[in-house]
Amino acid sequence: MLSVVLIGTGKVSAKLQQAFSRSEEIKLLAVYGREERKGEILPSGQIVSSISEFEHETDIIVIAVQDDAISIVQKEIGATNALVVHTAGSIPMNVLLPIERRGVFYPLQTLSADREVDFSSIPICLECAMVEDNELLEELAGSISGSVNWINSGERQRLHLAAVFTNNFVNHMIRQAEKICEQHDVPKEMLHPLLDETIAKAKELGAFKAQTGPAIRGDMSVIDKHIKLLPETVQQELYKTISASIQYEYESQL
Amino acid sequence: MLSVVLIGTGKVSAKLQQAFSRSEEIKLLAVYGREERKGEILPSGQIVSSISEFEHETDIIVIAVQDDAISIVQKEIGATNALVVHTAGSIPMNVLLPIERRGVFYPLQTLSADREVDFSSIPICLECAMVEDNELLEELAGSISGSVNWINSGERQRLHLAAVFTNNFVNHMIRQAEKICEQHDVPKEMLHPLLDETIAKAKELGAFKAQTGPAIRGDMSVIDKHIKLLPETVQQELYKTISASIQYEYESQL
Repeated sequence: MLSVVLIGTGKVSAKLQQAFSRSEEIKLLAVYGREERKGEILPSGQIVSSISEFEHETDIIVIAVQDDAISIVQKEIGATNALVVHTAGSIPMNVLLPIERRGVFYPLQTLSADREVDFSSIPICLECAMVEDNELLEELAGSISGSVNWINSGERQRLHLAAVFTNNFVNHMIRQAEKICEQHDVPKEMLHPLLDETIAKAKELGAFKAQTGPAIRGDMSVIDKHIKLLPETVQQELYKTISASIQYEYESQL
Repeated sequence: MLSVVLIGTGKVSAKLQQAFSRSEEIKLLAVYGREERKGEILPSGQIVSSISEFEHETDIIVIAVQDDAISIVQKEIGATNALVVHTAGSIPMNVLLPIERRGVFYPLQTLSADREVDFSSIPICLECAMVEDNELLEELAGSISGSVNWINSGERQRLHLAAVFTNNFVNHMIRQAEKICEQHDVPKEMLHPLLDETIAKAKELGAFKAQTGPAIRGDMSVIDKHIKLLPETVQQELYKTISASIQYEYESQL
């Protein structure tokens, strides 16, 4: 049984709280929020208002706060015997220095307040400073997910960058398609089968082989027509830059 | 029973040939290819070498060739009593003039030689010049798909543009993520759960509400770090342009 203290009251913390609470291998001692009144009531009925209350009896402290706040929380924690990990994709582990037993517990997923997430398939990316903590951290990750991965700070930053393309940028492309449908009274649900097949194809063949469309064909007449159809300059720039990037991607392979 | 002649030997024609052959409501009379030796052997054992062979006995001629070739094929067909439709997203119906009974049969999907496609859920976008042909065209579409939609040439061009964002551009974003993984020996399959959740979320909430990430948060320190991590100038341009577009999208809503 691992005892865990969770710091943060945002989306990541909320989802981890759910996952940890459901795991029989974890005893979630406390969830600590920045403001006292945000301290959450745990299943046991405890309300937590200070980190130090539980510090001496916890195995692991998980800091799930905004990137900028990690070093502030680290200072608040001060000296501790627990393993301290943060959950951020783009922040190096050493932001937790001078804490000796430090590490990272990064769930590679987009978490929203209003969506249930099945943690069992979410890849958890782990890193820790002391080899002695490997087993402990792996136990924590294994208790909620079947995908446990050791990824160092440099790789993790790049994985987070890849995640921005996979989630944020893919979503923005879908948004542009939605807007075009909204502007012309075409139901955006008509695009869903295409979206599903796009993803299935990219996963099966890899996105390099799956690419189709006017840009890879070099079909300038369709490209020009599309650019003229876009009402906003920003959308036109987007279309041009992405088309140029697709063309570069395949020309540079010749 | 509808009798159909299919023109073209590319991906769209191949997939339509499969779908029509499976439908009990359709009699596929012939598949005609540009070059005589490309004429395909039909289930009935017939080899077709000339369009005119079947013209007098078919209800519908489906032209499934490259955009540029549609008007050439239309001239080859010449005068006909059949309903003639093309399958292109971005070409107006009137490219088929002076044919009177003309129309469009556009399947909104990405079709690949090496992937099975279930036509039953693919939206088919229909248009025709003569009201008298509505029923016939709807019968053709309904014989292979449960999603039949009347969309005029102007709307269809915009739907095709939306499809470019949904498929081509989404796929290119996934390609960039794959490349980052390849460059740093991180298995790209680690991104698949994130990709699945991204799509599920965009479909459920709509992409406008689903947007997250450094660009919408205005987190310039992460954005700058990411741009520096990208090895190619083209990738950096892509990252900057898309981030600017995300910021514009949400600022313009304020």
